[in-house]
Amino acid sequence: MSRRPRIVFIGAGNVATHLAQAFYRAGYPIAAVCSRTRASAGTLAEKVKAPFTNRLHELPAADVYIIAVNDDAIARVARHPFPAQALVLHTSGGTGLDVLKQHSKRGVLYPLQTFSRAHSVDMKQVPFCIEAGSPQALSLLRRLALSVSGNIHRVSSQQRQVLHLAAVFACNFSNHLYAIADELLSASKLPFRLLEPLIAETARKAIEEGPARSQTGPAIRKDHQVMKKHLQLLSNKKELQRLYRLMSRSIMEQRA
Amino acid sequence: MSRRPRIVFIGAGNVATHLAQAFYRAGYPIAAVCSRTRASAGTLAEKVKAPFTNRLHELPAADVYIIAVNDDAIARVARHPFPAQALVLHTSGGTGLDVLKQHSKRGVLYPLQTFSRAHSVDMKQVPFCIEAGSPQALSLLRRLALSVSGNIHRVSSQQRQVLHLAAVFACNFSNHLYAIADELLSASKLPFRLLEPLIAETARKAIEEGPARSQTGPAIRKDHQVMKKHLQLLSNKKELQRLYRLMSRSIMEQRA
Repeated sequence: MSRRPRIVFIGAGNVATHLAQAFYRAGYPIAAVCSRTRASAGTLAEKVKAPFTNRLHELPAADVYIIAVNDDAIARVARHPFPAQALVLHTSGGTGLDVLKQHSKRGVLYPLQTFSRAHSVDMKQVPFCIEAGSPQALSLLRRLALSVSGNIHRVSSQQRQVLHLAAVFACNFSNHLYAIADELLSASKLPFRLLEPLIAETARKAIEEGPARSQTGPAIRKDHQVMKKHLQLLSNKKELQRLYRLMSRSIMEQRA
Repeated sequence: MSRRPRIVFIGAGNVATHLAQAFYRAGYPIAAVCSRTRASAGTLAEKVKAPFTNRLHELPAADVYIIAVNDDAIARVARHPFPAQALVLHTSGGTGLDVLKQHSKRGVLYPLQTFSRAHSVDMKQVPFCIEAGSPQALSLLRRLALSVSGNIHRVSSQQRQVLHLAAVFACNFSNHLYAIADELLSASKLPFRLLEPLIAETARKAIEEGPARSQTGPAIRKDHQVMKKHLQLLSNKKELQRLYRLMSRSIMEQRA
């Protein structure tokens, strides 16, 4: 194929927005954007100079259809009769390739990153996990992925589920711990920014030295006196006490 | 006082090592290093060109004594009769100023950072939380702190305890979540480095945009289908299932 494949985006959320812009910047024509709400479809469509619609049956013919919608909506979209020769992809960490089985050319393009609407991400660094239903589909999928990122990994549906689960622990749950810390500080009139060098250094150490090796704090030292004091400080916050106990026990077991 | 105060370090762990080196580089003479094990005292003493001992009563006269030992050992060291005119400090987040009450010039110098033996930290960025027992002690303490860091905060003993607790959530517990993610990936033959851009971006977003505002993932979306799948993946890991449920519920409540 000498010309750039034409891509349709279904979905206009954070993942669709960052991916569509990355492909657009890499020179791919975006044939259309489709989203349930016309307004969000329009917002993304404007950024990538594409027409938009809120109806699947109005979509133009294209070479690639990228379904970037919430997990519980993928199956419904996948039942649409996309053109037989087209590559149909979804972008979800938590959904198998099978959901696309009615399409002969199918694949998954899962960008392992947390995207926010406001902030742009260096897409070249984002790990893209790919999986395809055939060698032909894999070949085109790999070419697509390599044109936006230098960090491509072939990953099975089962591995991708584990990756997604691990990402929930490392990203969503860690971020929630930051939010809990922020709340504790606010209640004592202390600014969250006091913790910023610590948060940055903790992430750096885990990345450069490995998380198990870089653990510090009262639990890994088995400093029961400090842990007892912390539990007393949380005496009117039963849920946080439970979380503190569970995490500390898990850290102490890790060492053993 | 025109000459630089002479400093004695009691303790030779990570905090003592990083602090002693910072003061040494800032031009303070280190009068001695004291640690229960002579070997570790000697290692630190060599780095800061100081004599060393494992006995408190062998310590030379100095202007400042910095007690940087484990929390449960501070009280014992604090009972030592340091010279009456000397400033006696400890460096602990979890211990009050009161533990030093027998010393008329007393204070706390708490560096809010996670230190590892191998890696040097940019001390100028580290938040130093200070507290003192008198205006005179505060004045010298502030001068000491400012000569190693540009990030000084006056914090009460009660606030410092909350800071320490918040740091356990934001640092030790987050790091443990990274370790759990690492374990999950290893079991599926996936490398931890796949998560590195995500971990770095999650920390960046929390710092720049605030953690509550930047939450993503299945819990904040109330995507029960994905959470159910994740719990199934953890079906032979009851402790992780419990942690997953607790964290997800806490995230869902945060939104409400």
